[in-house]
Amino acid sequence: MNTLCEMLISMLPESADAALIISKQNKRYFAAFPSDDCYLLITRESAYLIVDFRYTEDAEAKSDGCKVITYKDLRETLGELCKRHALQSIMFEGSAFCLNEAARMEDMLSSAGCRAIKTAELDGIIEKLRITKTDKEIGHIRRAQFIAEQALMQTLPLVKEGVYESELALELEYRMRKLGAEGVSFDLIVIAGAKTSMPHGVPGDNRIMRGDFITFDIGTRFQGYCSDMTRTYAFGEVSEKQKRIYETVRQAQQLGLEAVRAGVRCCDVDSAARTYITHAGFGEYFGHSTGHGVGLDIHEAPAVSSRNEAELQSGMVITVEPGIYLPGEFGVRIEDMVVVTTDGCINLAALPKELTVLG
Amino acid sequence: MNTLCEMLISMLPESADAALIISKQNKRYFAAFPSDDCYLLITRESAYLIVDFRYTEDAEAKSDGCKVITYKDLRETLGELCKRHALQSIMFEGSAFCLNEAARMEDMLSSAGCRAIKTAELDGIIEKLRITKTDKEIGHIRRAQFIAEQALMQTLPLVKEGVYESELALELEYRMRKLGAEGVSFDLIVIAGAKTSMPHGVPGDNRIMRGDFITFDIGTRFQGYCSDMTRTYAFGEVSEKQKRIYETVRQAQQLGLEAVRAGVRCCDVDSAARTYITHAGFGEYFGHSTGHGVGLDIHEAPAVSSRNEAELQSGMVITVEPGIYLPGEFGVRIEDMVVVTTDGCINLAALPKELTVLG
Repeated sequence: MNTLCEMLISMLPESADAALIISKQNKRYFAAFPSDDCYLLITRESAYLIVDFRYTEDAEAKSDGCKVITYKDLRETLGELCKRHALQSIMFEGSAFCLNEAARMEDMLSSAGCRAIKTAELDGIIEKLRITKTDKEIGHIRRAQFIAEQALMQTLPLVKEGVYESELALELEYRMRKLGAEGVSFDLIVIAGAKTSMPHGVPGDNRIMRGDFITFDIGTRFQGYCSDMTRTYAFGEVSEKQKRIYETVRQAQQLGLEAVRAGVRCCDVDSAARTYITHAGFGEYFGHSTGHGVGLDIHEAPAVSSRNEAELQSGMVITVEPGIYLPGEFGVRIEDMVVVTTDGCINLAALPKELTVLG
Repeated sequence: MNTLCEMLISMLPESADAALIISKQNKRYFAAFPSDDCYLLITRESAYLIVDFRYTEDAEAKSDGCKVITYKDLRETLGELCKRHALQSIMFEGSAFCLNEAARMEDMLSSAGCRAIKTAELDGIIEKLRITKTDKEIGHIRRAQFIAEQALMQTLPLVKEGVYESELALELEYRMRKLGAEGVSFDLIVIAGAKTSMPHGVPGDNRIMRGDFITFDIGTRFQGYCSDMTRTYAFGEVSEKQKRIYETVRQAQQLGLEAVRAGVRCCDVDSAARTYITHAGFGEYFGHSTGHGVGLDIHEAPAVSSRNEAELQSGMVITVEPGIYLPGEFGVRIEDMVVVTTDGCINLAALPKELTVLG
């Protein structure tokens, strides 16, 4: 059993004899094997990766710290494991089991006299482990971020008058994958003009026009780990108002970054960015949180929001991404992804944030 | 309320007063609004799309046959709807709710005195509706298929000695999206050489070599609907054995297609293809079913397998895709997607199936 599985098992309440994990992300995290069709059962003595014959060879070659068991009849295999480890209760991954799958597994376990615990408790325990990252994990996130920035640099020359947002999004994703990304970490946001006032606008058949802001909110995946970054560019000459708003967001983002340090509360980072925007008179146009954790999921703990009083810890990876969105006019968001340290943070994004004019 | 919602509600057991739907596919199917963050509640009197403020405008513009309700406090909104329609029990979509989300919703409903039914029953009812397709749905599937074939034609000239499988997969996906696909309907399979013996091989850094078979199992998505097709090509001269196996699969596939007709059992279509392969001596190397339904999901009912005795109906869209896989050597699969008719079927794939030599 590897250290992560051992840590997990030590955090389970006494009422649970084992944990049953089925999400790709958590199978990658605990067993280095993110395949869809397999089950990870972590008991107090051993961890098992339960696969069908199609995955046996691959699982034996790639998985870490688990015994690989090939099942023919899943009920039978689970029954044997329950017996071997005298399992009376197994905690399910409540965020990953659908009702039908949970009912099917619960039924199989009940024939072995074992009870399913179907709460969100296991998710909470796993969150505590995943919330800080090892150097290896940070390496993967950094690589994902590097690819995203390279791809963006290669795509910016394609920004021309009349080009569709969706074309740019496709060209960007194509370049990310050419550069070795496994894929995007979320549907890329490439929006222009009035659409930039929508924090989660979808690239469409809107054409780039002179005087537009263009927002790129982009991320890739490397070894399963996500990156996340936003830059807002000007296409041609933009108005004084656009410049003023841009500078307000840039300053707020800088203040947010400067607030990041192990021991600082998440809400205080949010406040550092938000207060500046509020004082500038745009508080009501900054309708989302300042940031979020990033890892195997693009959005994970901790939430960098006004409601989260938890303290930042060294090794957390979070985003700092304030924005101002003026409906019907335009919006600006600037986002970096940083590693929290005892002294402050290491910024994983390298692209400049001074207002850049394209075209 | 539109016809589909009315049909659904008429099929609910008396014990259920309403259905709660959260999967993208089924929100698209019943309400023409496949957004992530919303709930579709179908009561016996009305259908409601329950959204937060970010989606109100879009939902009102695009959804069909539903009243759009914007919630601030979901518990409160659900409570009001339970009261308005005297709901005592709501059937959940068991394949789509995770345990945590189900518990959260169940708790909200219980404060309104309403009970959640958390079985797979609703999924079964929806499957019955979705299993046959309207002309409009078939139009979308046809369009998705057309794009896939166009993109494949544009990609085949890139097949050269030494090219990586993963490069071809990326170029193919890029072209699909350029041609208007919303995306791929599954991770494209582009594999060559000995890897073709794996029915679900993943494109990797395997280089194309002369004498290889190359398998393209590909599909796109249009208006949410999937396409699915497989072609196996020769790169350069291939052996007599490869040619013989190819012809065996081609003949088996033709016999499978000829067996398709409304009223014929799924297992008889499977048998038509399988018997030929078995008689040729390769039965043990054809380890999967002959086909499956295609629609909003890439794999949906009916299973065209030896165990499914259900009869085909006009308007079903199914694949016919026998294969022979010789471990360590090579594999061949040929797959078309067809619409079942009273007389036979309409083949939605147009690309030829005679052995084609590339390069």
